[in-house]
Amino acid sequence: MTKLFKMSSGNARKLVSKLVFKNGLIPAVAKNNSGKVLMVGFMNRKSLLKTLTTGYMHYYSRSRRRIWMKGEESGFKQRVLEVRVNCENNSLLFTVEQEGLGACHMGYETCFYRKASIRGVFKKVEEKKFNPKRVYGPSRLKTSKKLLKE
Amino acid sequence: MTKLFKMSSGNARKLVSKLVFKNGLIPAVAKNNSGKVLMVGFMNRKSLLKTLTTGYMHYYSRSRRRIWMKGEESGFKQRVLEVRVNCENNSLLFTVEQEGLGACHMGYETCFYRKASIRGVFKKVEEKKFNPKRVYGPSRLKTSKKLLKE
Repeated sequence: MTKLFKMSSGNARKLVSKLVFKNGLIPAVAKNNSGKVLMVGFMNRKSLLKTLTTGYMHYYSRSRRRIWMKGEESGFKQRVLEVRVNCENNSLLFTVEQEGLGACHMGYETCFYRKASIRGVFKKVEEKKFNPKRVYGPSRLKTSKKLLKE
Repeated sequence: MTKLFKMSSGNARKLVSKLVFKNGLIPAVAKNNSGKVLMVGFMNRKSLLKTLTTGYMHYYSRSRRRIWMKGEESGFKQRVLEVRVNCENNSLLFTVEQEGLGACHMGYETCFYRKASIRGVFKKVEEKKFNPKRVYGPSRLKTSKKLLKE
């Protein structure tokens, strides 16, 4: 395992004070060391501070309106290796080490497991890595299916 | 140059109808074929339809409140190669071919040219690829500096 990137809460607050939040949120992209984008989430100041001080990704869920640590249910945490900021200080790019079998609660390594075809439909292009029912239990998946329109 | 990924407006509408927009917007990550994340922006339905039907990235600027085609000022357009969607249909990942010298209006290949140190400051870690004043003129850069807090 690679060393966690984390900092003191004073330094974390210093960093956060430089960022531009919109409605209290900033987009956060998590990619792994191979350049695979695993997921896109949002962070509020508090979840970003938690991320920076613990070295584990903490997002803010807009639907559940609460901070959650990635992996809190599944155990599949995301270890922070590097944090980058964009030119306008309003989005963040994290390089993470994904623990466990994958980032996606549907059982894939990446949440971006579907690709658009020119016919206007999305098709699975990634292999399933684990059985999400075993990892998350059936209730969480039910909620997710409601969120999906297809 | 690789073939543009684009579709008919009927198929684009079909695709867009499956997506979940929050306040009319969906986050869009643009990465290149080498796995380098170039930028993160937002799209509204109209800019996404333009992207899908033309094969060139069109974002929605939240500060300027208008659709803009990436490269409209610089000529450094982004050709769409692939479109992926996440598990919850609420974020998009584009693989693009960056035309010209880079994606960032500050003169870098990627907008994520600064990395956080554990001291809580951001440090440039990418090489400058072009002189942004020559490409964009001085006015645009002035506006951007106002947006930055540091």
